[in-house]
Amino acid sequence: MNYLLCYSPGAASMAVHWMLIEMGIQFETRLVDINVGNQRNPEYLRLNPSGRVPTLMVDGTPRHESAALLMLLAERHPEAGLAPEPGSAERAAWLELMIYLANTVLPAMRDWFYAASDGDPAGAEGVRALARRRIEEACDRLDTELADGRDYLVGGKLSTADFLAVVLMRWTRNMPRPALGWPHLARYIRGLRALPSFIELNAREGLTEWRNQDD
Amino acid sequence: MNYLLCYSPGAASMAVHWMLIEMGIQFETRLVDINVGNQRNPEYLRLNPSGRVPTLMVDGTPRHESAALLMLLAERHPEAGLAPEPGSAERAAWLELMIYLANTVLPAMRDWFYAASDGDPAGAEGVRALARRRIEEACDRLDTELADGRDYLVGGKLSTADFLAVVLMRWTRNMPRPALGWPHLARYIRGLRALPSFIELNAREGLTEWRNQDD
Ligand SMILES: N[C@@H](CCC(=O)N[C@@H](CS)C(=O)NCC(=O)O)C(=O)O
Ligand SMILES: N[C@@H](CCC(=O)N[C@@H](CS)C(=O)NCC(=O)O)C(=O)O
Repeated sequence: MNYLLCYSPGAASMAVHWMLIEMGIQFETRLVDINVGNQRNPEYLRLNPSGRVPTLMVDGTPRHESAALLMLLAERHPEAGLAPEPGSAERAAWLELMIYLANTVLPAMRDWFYAASDGDPAGAEGVRALARRRIEEACDRLDTELADGRDYLVGGKLSTADFLAVVLMRWTRNMPRPALGWPHLARYIRGLRALPSFIELNAREGLTEWRNQDD
Repeated sequence: MNYLLCYSPGAASMAVHWMLIEMGIQFETRLVDINVGNQRNPEYLRLNPSGRVPTLMVDGTPRHESAALLMLLAERHPEAGLAPEPGSAERAAWLELMIYLANTVLPAMRDWFYAASDGDPAGAEGVRALARRRIEEACDRLDTELADGRDYLVGGKLSTADFLAVVLMRWTRNMPRPALGWPHLARYIRGLRALPSFIELNAREGLTEWRNQDD
């Protein structure tokens, strides 16, 4: 199995990058820096016509959508145990949470950061206000789920849902109400950020914010 | 395996209802009519605290998120063949498309129909304008994929992606640009609407719009 991840530091690609590192398998990376617009290079657009990261080249074929890539990798590498097994009691909860993060939190983040470029700047204020409300509702919901003291979102162990959730929560760091302001969520985030794979991820992406030593 | 689907006619529950009928398995239904606000009954809120449909009771446990339910059912009933098999060439494309429909089209639909109640009515116009743009972009994209004349979205046969896509496209029927205005999408939709399971679905939900005989 052959993987090449096109990523930009701190972007949605980060969840997939984290999983690849955590699994300890071999993969290559290619930097597509969205801060300087490299996602719109014609060469990259051939791999991802929507001009977004991540793209994961899987045995030479470009694949997209971070949540789908996490699920695909979990399925291709069952020995890593990063998703509850099909047929297990936790499987339905895991699927539900992956879709919830993918279709509630992720699109609201897109709205928060891209309202003025995805749409008409005149309407951006309303879009961002609704996005903020939805993101804070999601923090409420996750905080409630984590109130029982659990370290991982599903099934009592690390899964793809944690990679996705923590990367999404990272994006709240400069929002009006950062996720670290919710007590159970903060405990959960600090636990995940202590993982060697998260520390390595930040080093490889050159990120020096929102690590346990930073806040 | 025991299933009870809480549904409202024509809502997101419709994709799950369609799949259950298509599979020919036994299931029960409970009407939760969102047109009269029954999704906010305390009894239903215990099954689904967010007050939305669908909820699928799976062996007595309430499960949510239509895209997740479709994927769960595909996994629990592999003999129905409604998703490419894990490890198959089409599996990655199926996962990507399920997530794309779930995190691009579905949230944009929520924005189009619920902007003024999910958020501040003052910002609703901007939210709906962006939603419309995204939905039309999705129709462009699906139309392009279907331009090769295929009858199903993935893997040359009916899958959960078709249930989700067609139900989402149904919601465009009173929008400024209904999906039937895209030529390849229209051919695709008419093909799917001709399935006995879709005809049965409309009869069971009491729907008399957007069937092949209607437009
Ligand atoms: N649904 C996509 C969203 C990807 C996405 O929006 N990525 C952002 C960075 S977090 C991006 O590429 N932005 C650059 C741009 O849109 O120009 C996924 O989960 O992979
Ligand atoms: N992401 C959810 C969305 C469900 C949803 O928004 N359902 C709508 C009907 S299509 C609903 O229940 N609306 C009633 C309400 O929000 O009050 C899913 O896919 O199941």
